[in-house]
Amino acid sequence: MKIEIDLEMIFGINIVEAVIDSREKEVKSLFVMESKSNSRIKALIDKANSKKITVSVKSRSFFKENFENLNHQGVSILCEKRKEENESYLGDLLKKKSILLLVLDHLTDPHNVGACLRSSSAANVDAVIVPKNRACHLNPTVRKVSSGGSELIPFVIVTNLVRALEKIRSYGVEVVGADQNAEESYSDIDLGKKVAFVIGSEDKGLKRLTSKNCDKLVKIDMPGKIESLNTSVSASILIFEYLRKNRNNF
Amino acid sequence: MKIEIDLEMIFGINIVEAVIDSREKEVKSLFVMESKSNSRIKALIDKANSKKITVSVKSRSFFKENFENLNHQGVSILCEKRKEENESYLGDLLKKKSILLLVLDHLTDPHNVGACLRSSSAANVDAVIVPKNRACHLNPTVRKVSSGGSELIPFVIVTNLVRALEKIRSYGVEVVGADQNAEESYSDIDLGKKVAFVIGSEDKGLKRLTSKNCDKLVKIDMPGKIESLNTSVSASILIFEYLRKNRNNF
Repeated sequence: MKIEIDLEMIFGINIVEAVIDSREKEVKSLFVMESKSNSRIKALIDKANSKKITVSVKSRSFFKENFENLNHQGVSILCEKRKEENESYLGDLLKKKSILLLVLDHLTDPHNVGACLRSSSAANVDAVIVPKNRACHLNPTVRKVSSGGSELIPFVIVTNLVRALEKIRSYGVEVVGADQNAEESYSDIDLGKKVAFVIGSEDKGLKRLTSKNCDKLVKIDMPGKIESLNTSVSASILIFEYLRKNRNNF
Repeated sequence: MKIEIDLEMIFGINIVEAVIDSREKEVKSLFVMESKSNSRIKALIDKANSKKITVSVKSRSFFKENFENLNHQGVSILCEKRKEENESYLGDLLKKKSILLLVLDHLTDPHNVGACLRSSSAANVDAVIVPKNRACHLNPTVRKVSSGGSELIPFVIVTNLVRALEKIRSYGVEVVGADQNAEESYSDIDLGKKVAFVIGSEDKGLKRLTSKNCDKLVKIDMPGKIESLNTSVSASILIFEYLRKNRNNF
């Protein structure tokens, strides 16, 4: 299906439901696969009808063509793309009692940024924060790789990353940078309820000034021969360690 | 640089050293970036010289062209591609006292398989095991995405995955399948020193018979709205949980 440039296709029951709940006015159509019917899909159709969202039944080949090898569950929507947020978005967010942020320090590879958004969405990260310059923002590849994460997780662009980290710290959020030269292991540190993980680019790691503005630096122990994990894998391991340590809060 | 079909370019000091150590006869050339010099690179050059491996100094643009955005550390080699192994490879391996295996249940996406190999290499997984049919094997995309992992980690193709799992279990290896419908969380289970994690495909998850041949099924708790993580991220979270729990053994 050809899609207009300001629209996005999203699949999977949970995320479709979440986007309808949070941004109903921006949803253009709900697509349901023919002969696919269960109580959750019926509930989605009822919800779409009650919100005057068009519901279309589509063939198996439609779903295969648009979401090959993906767990679409026979459900998708067409909606307006979620826009990037600016620094002011952080104001209210930082007052939360429990907060998990992912800061990407000048990542340029859209596959990595998209994969970080996907994991962030699975883990319910409060926002992904990136600098304005020399960094990958929301583009079509990022959105595609994020599997819908780009439509749910606030993507915040800040003018000055160091100043943003200072602001984040001023609200009692612990800023933890990933650095393979750190002495402490990620699994050894205490993690409170308010944490921001900072991840550097694949080739250069954390920038010096970013690193200086972290409360703590941690490494991920790797007994093997490859020097580093994929950026999004490192980010995911840290995020899920936060969840493991804070699981009683969810 | 144009590369012959049976050759592979690998970058990064540790992995280059590991491949020279383990497969010196298959290494064609060592490439070092001009004006890049430190004690580890000097030691690599000495090692290459002593093994009669050609050493060439290459420009910055050579490294940029071949390994853009990657942490090449100014070092790479050209070597014969590591070949896939067959079932007989498992024989000796399974006698080890401590063993970590990653079984991919009919994954078809080369990016996922490559990413699994990359994380496996960082974590020193003993082997990645895949079925012969309807599954992605070592191809150029897998090798590229694996960042050298394909040249270090044994990639074992088995004719019958269920029979292979039975064999693995018969050696006292605990087979743990990833299944979002499982009741137990991955972080709650005990993990011994001998573990095989089994990961299903993105769209279909574990096959029924694979699932039946696991000792345990575990889920990764996800408080967010996206139903599933990227396959390689799930695999990495499980692998690094094994390392965290067994870290005193390394």
